[in-house]
Amino acid sequence: MANRLTFYIFFLLCLCLGLLCVVFVTYWNAVWRGGFAWDGSSLQFNWHPVFMVTGLVVLYGFAAVLYRIPYTWRYDKTPWKLLHAGTLLLAFIFSILGLCAVFDFHNANNTPNLYSLHSWIGICTVALFALQWAAGFSAFLLPWTPVDIRKVTKPLHVWMGSIILVMSIISCISGINEKLFFVLKANVNGTRPYASLPPEAVFVNTFGVLIVAFGLVVLRILYNLKWQRPDPSSDGDGYRVSIIIKRLPGSSSGCIFVVVFALIT
Amino acid sequence: MANRLTFYIFFLLCLCLGLLCVVFVTYWNAVWRGGFAWDGSSLQFNWHPVFMVTGLVVLYGFAAVLYRIPYTWRYDKTPWKLLHAGTLLLAFIFSILGLCAVFDFHNANNTPNLYSLHSWIGICTVALFALQWAAGFSAFLLPWTPVDIRKVTKPLHVWMGSIILVMSIISCISGINEKLFFVLKANVNGTRPYASLPPEAVFVNTFGVLIVAFGLVVLRILYNLKWQRPDPSSDGDGYRVSIIIKRLPGSSSGCIFVVVFALIT
Repeated sequence: MANRLTFYIFFLLCLCLGLLCVVFVTYWNAVWRGGFAWDGSSLQFNWHPVFMVTGLVVLYGFAAVLYRIPYTWRYDKTPWKLLHAGTLLLAFIFSILGLCAVFDFHNANNTPNLYSLHSWIGICTVALFALQWAAGFSAFLLPWTPVDIRKVTKPLHVWMGSIILVMSIISCISGINEKLFFVLKANVNGTRPYASLPPEAVFVNTFGVLIVAFGLVVLRILYNLKWQRPDPSSDGDGYRVSIIIKRLPGSSSGCIFVVVFALIT
Repeated sequence: MANRLTFYIFFLLCLCLGLLCVVFVTYWNAVWRGGFAWDGSSLQFNWHPVFMVTGLVVLYGFAAVLYRIPYTWRYDKTPWKLLHAGTLLLAFIFSILGLCAVFDFHNANNTPNLYSLHSWIGICTVALFALQWAAGFSAFLLPWTPVDIRKVTKPLHVWMGSIILVMSIISCISGINEKLFFVLKANVNGTRPYASLPPEAVFVNTFGVLIVAFGLVVLRILYNLKWQRPDPSSDGDGYRVSIIIKRLPGSSSGCIFVVVFALIT
């Protein structure tokens, strides 16, 4: 009982930190960085941190800890698998939109793409995420994948999942740090330099610390053995697609059939 | 046997990546950034990345995986504990030297300290490292710490240890990214801008990728349950200090004794 209570405290902390990250990144770009547009200007760039943090950190982190919620253990795993995959797909779409925002902005301003260390780590993170999602879908959601393959793949899947989260946090912190050096300069647009710690710098540094805290809480939840779903034997489960062919009553010699794909959980 | 072989492949990879990181950071600062000094100039700053990467990433990572080496399992844990603590102390000394280098450089150039997100995450990392070392020393090396305290503390110690590594990698990548934007500018000191990817940028970006790869390999080794020392019961072990009081042969009525502190492992 105490173990479950501790979990829910961590889970609540995870939710609060995640939501705070989304609020901070949106407020920063909406208020201090001038808002949003999709016109090649710096207002288009502002979508980049919002989409990346919301997708590749917060939604991704929420999806990662989904199976650890004790409430879900009393039900079959399949709907939670679909929710896990669906949330991650949404996170991936956000990441792609985030990449489009920055590539478009760079192209419109004749700035080269993918030259900084931040961008190298970031693009590797998104590429790994794409591979991980496709591999996860193939291993755990395709009905014809053998159970043995699922069992062998699962530890690697969990491991790669946490690695991608670590890499996305590295990308975010290096990107935010870079952005603050770019925009907070003396006598530019009425801002004070980063080194004098104007309110925006304190706010965004705090936001960076929140991202790191969120990531560490997610990893803490993931790697506490006591908080893992207690039925590892069900890892082989999933849905199986059955094809049921039925002759409709009153139809002539077998020309009308109904093919039913059934999700058998 | 296959499990052990896989471990040694990962361990070798860890050693190679760690050594490569030290070579890359030293070469970068010695050759491209002009070398080293301790005179408040940018040559003093150059010690900062060298000390931080060597201490807070490479030595730290080596110390973390020490217990996972199967070769060490046939021996008592105590000498390996001392080597673990000693290597981490060396890593900590390197980190402090790294901080001194950058603080001195900033002070000599009237630049404020601790304003960037990189520095916020970095200083939190070193502070956590200091706490972790002191807590680890108290829990696992002081002979009078109860065995129960050691057993309760161990998972948290391992967890905090990996968190500190993740945070140190975040600090390093954001710092390297920041430094490249600072120094690679058009028409400054004959360099080409970062965006045009001059050889230094490619070299240092590659170095950043190596740091991330090193960290991921260390974490992989730490969290593979099959590679953990197989005698968790020995976690309570350590050295005990025994005081042996012995009367020397030929000494008069009990006035000369030899007090022996024995390390009983």
